[in-house]
Amino acid sequence: MADDTTPIPEDETPGLSRRSFFLGAGGLAASGLIVGGAAGGAGGFALARATGSETAATADVTYPFFDQAHQGGIQTEPQKYSVFMTYDLTTSSRAAVQVLLARWTAAIAQMVKGQPIGDPEPTNPEAVALDSGEAQGLGAQGLTVTLGLGPGLFDSRFGLASKRPALLRQLPTLPSDQLQKEYTGGDLCLSACADDPQVAYHAIRNLTRMARGTATTSWTVTGFGRASAGPSQQTPRNLLGFKDGTRNVVDDADFARWVWLRDQDQNWMNDGTYLVARKIHQNIEIWDTDQISDQETVFGRTKGEGAPLSGHREFDTPNFTKKDAAGNPVISPTSHIALAAHENNGGIKIHRRSYNYTEGIDGVGQIDAGLLFIAFMNDPEHFIKLQTKLGSVDRLNEYIKHIGSALFAVPPGPDTGSYIGAGLFS
Amino acid sequence: MADDTTPIPEDETPGLSRRSFFLGAGGLAASGLIVGGAAGGAGGFALARATGSETAATADVTYPFFDQAHQGGIQTEPQKYSVFMTYDLTTSSRAAVQVLLARWTAAIAQMVKGQPIGDPEPTNPEAVALDSGEAQGLGAQGLTVTLGLGPGLFDSRFGLASKRPALLRQLPTLPSDQLQKEYTGGDLCLSACADDPQVAYHAIRNLTRMARGTATTSWTVTGFGRASAGPSQQTPRNLLGFKDGTRNVVDDADFARWVWLRDQDQNWMNDGTYLVARKIHQNIEIWDTDQISDQETVFGRTKGEGAPLSGHREFDTPNFTKKDAAGNPVISPTSHIALAAHENNGGIKIHRRSYNYTEGIDGVGQIDAGLLFIAFMNDPEHFIKLQTKLGSVDRLNEYIKHIGSALFAVPPGPDTGSYIGAGLFS
Repeated sequence: MADDTTPIPEDETPGLSRRSFFLGAGGLAASGLIVGGAAGGAGGFALARATGSETAATADVTYPFFDQAHQGGIQTEPQKYSVFMTYDLTTSSRAAVQVLLARWTAAIAQMVKGQPIGDPEPTNPEAVALDSGEAQGLGAQGLTVTLGLGPGLFDSRFGLASKRPALLRQLPTLPSDQLQKEYTGGDLCLSACADDPQVAYHAIRNLTRMARGTATTSWTVTGFGRASAGPSQQTPRNLLGFKDGTRNVVDDADFARWVWLRDQDQNWMNDGTYLVARKIHQNIEIWDTDQISDQETVFGRTKGEGAPLSGHREFDTPNFTKKDAAGNPVISPTSHIALAAHENNGGIKIHRRSYNYTEGIDGVGQIDAGLLFIAFMNDPEHFIKLQTKLGSVDRLNEYIKHIGSALFAVPPGPDTGSYIGAGLFS
Repeated sequence: MADDTTPIPEDETPGLSRRSFFLGAGGLAASGLIVGGAAGGAGGFALARATGSETAATADVTYPFFDQAHQGGIQTEPQKYSVFMTYDLTTSSRAAVQVLLARWTAAIAQMVKGQPIGDPEPTNPEAVALDSGEAQGLGAQGLTVTLGLGPGLFDSRFGLASKRPALLRQLPTLPSDQLQKEYTGGDLCLSACADDPQVAYHAIRNLTRMARGTATTSWTVTGFGRASAGPSQQTPRNLLGFKDGTRNVVDDADFARWVWLRDQDQNWMNDGTYLVARKIHQNIEIWDTDQISDQETVFGRTKGEGAPLSGHREFDTPNFTKKDAAGNPVISPTSHIALAAHENNGGIKIHRRSYNYTEGIDGVGQIDAGLLFIAFMNDPEHFIKLQTKLGSVDRLNEYIKHIGSALFAVPPGPDTGSYIGAGLFS
């Protein structure tokens, strides 16, 4: 057992001897993923080091997992697709939560290498498969899975109240919010991102399966195209047809200043961050009837190039004081970019990592679509401040509706032999 | 005006002078997409030749559109993603249907080249954009859009009853069907497939927009990963974790024998085909609890390699008469592959072109997922025969549920200057 492992006390894991790790003991033990007596039911266990037998079956991008300061899927260049899932805990056992985080970590560690959970060709055909199989042969596809902890985890259920980070609360209702209860909150969240949607889906499906008996699904959004760019990527477009994320936080200095946590009251959160998720419905059929010139006024940018209306090229710095011949601001003060700009918000920046979604047809026959807004920041108040302003006067509000909302604390990356969120239990 | 164009009679298009072609006249006329007086409101028009100014902005795959015997998206190597949408006509005007098919054809012709509908940087900013914009910069991505005509088009509404192909009827209710009315039928369908889901979505979104006032959306499925392979592709996996489509019809001889129509009662359907769409819900959370050996019995194939249980490699020909030591068939006669095999169905083959889908969480907290089964055939009875057998005794029925169903006649590809389905109106 590695020294930095936080073992799960035997007396707190009554279910562990009946229920083998993951779903079946045989395949898992054979895969070398666990050490200790858990599979045999004897008690305390820990996660073993990764097997090290990583063979690059494909030329796919693979991100390192253990022993990184931060979890993947935050500063990682945005992959093309995502599946975001939230969960509500149904257990009242702190140990069961701990086991779930440990199991999830072990499984994520396998999947980000492009490997199935357990043995791809199980030696015991009478076993239930550890892995559902649909990602086999697809490779890692740059998979990352980011795990977040909701405020509910620190309520009276699990005796973890003393571990609650001071900044972690349910987000308040903000101006213009039209939240639907079924898209809000969650005790836990997982955000799987990959360059193949079936790989992202596979991860969430199998992690959900592991949660059975401990947590139930709450709400989910499948992102079918990124709406945020990394430093080497072209800026993608949201479903309103505009480039999104041109001024996103992407460099290390901004990440250090605005995203990563340090010197926290809860030191287990250092190197972590906060994740704000907002499900934003877009009234695209109404938007589509709007004049291009008005759409550009709404955003403060041109639709084609994505240039600020004060400039010519996408990456020109917006000039919010520039006036036209009639003396009016070229970029409307109630345009989306004027309201969101760090220049107009005391310097505040957040790192956005959003995805477009579509969910078929709504009740009145219109295409149901929008944006899963995901942002990372080292103080949720930064988002609250920005959205309070945007929700109040943003010209875009005529065409969008915030229907889902949640805040999660994102722990740092796990050490080898440990698991995400281990600091909660030490 | 091209000689092979079927003009729309002036007296049948009263709305045409008020409503410009597509959504705005200026941009469209400027793009060279139309000739004749339609934009000016003078009457008959036709679709012009493609502009020929195609510049390959990306290295994307682009498929030819006009003057192909068959529509794209049938024998085309399956792209990775799809959006399938059905429509119900709300107009009672035959001419309005004709205009819609013509507009759709013109727009599809642009989009399959990776070009927006109309001018990407409109010269008149006061105009409403012809193109919603979110696919700009993404390239063609191998886009195809396949247009189908439902049985309803030939009912009493449009005076087209005499044009109905004899084989086109609503599919009957088949054994085990648990159809939900909201996922059945449709007067028209569009199936957009591309290697980027946002490109496929963009196509359907913009074509839907053009239908406003003529047709409303009926049901839709977004396919997030192909579940059928072309001849040069590895066999993909469905969400049950099994390879799907190993024995699919892929060669020209089989297409000629089993897919393409010839010598039809309605000669406008020659070189066309029939499209069967089935929305198949998969109870994946129950499936995931099943033993691998039982899953393999259900399919008649191994899960990892995808080999028939009578053989060793994926493409080994199944031996349905092979017995084990106890005298039982190695491949169960009620396995999915035994029931579907052409050897056991008088030689019948269909071309499958299915996609996996996921639609979030269902009413009881389970992941809602399945397969959009799409198949092409030159006689719908072939599907009916196969599914009657499968629906009756397929072992897979314990885990799947056919909830959506529709049949469409797919006309041949359009000639330059004409449009898909023009033969209906001549």
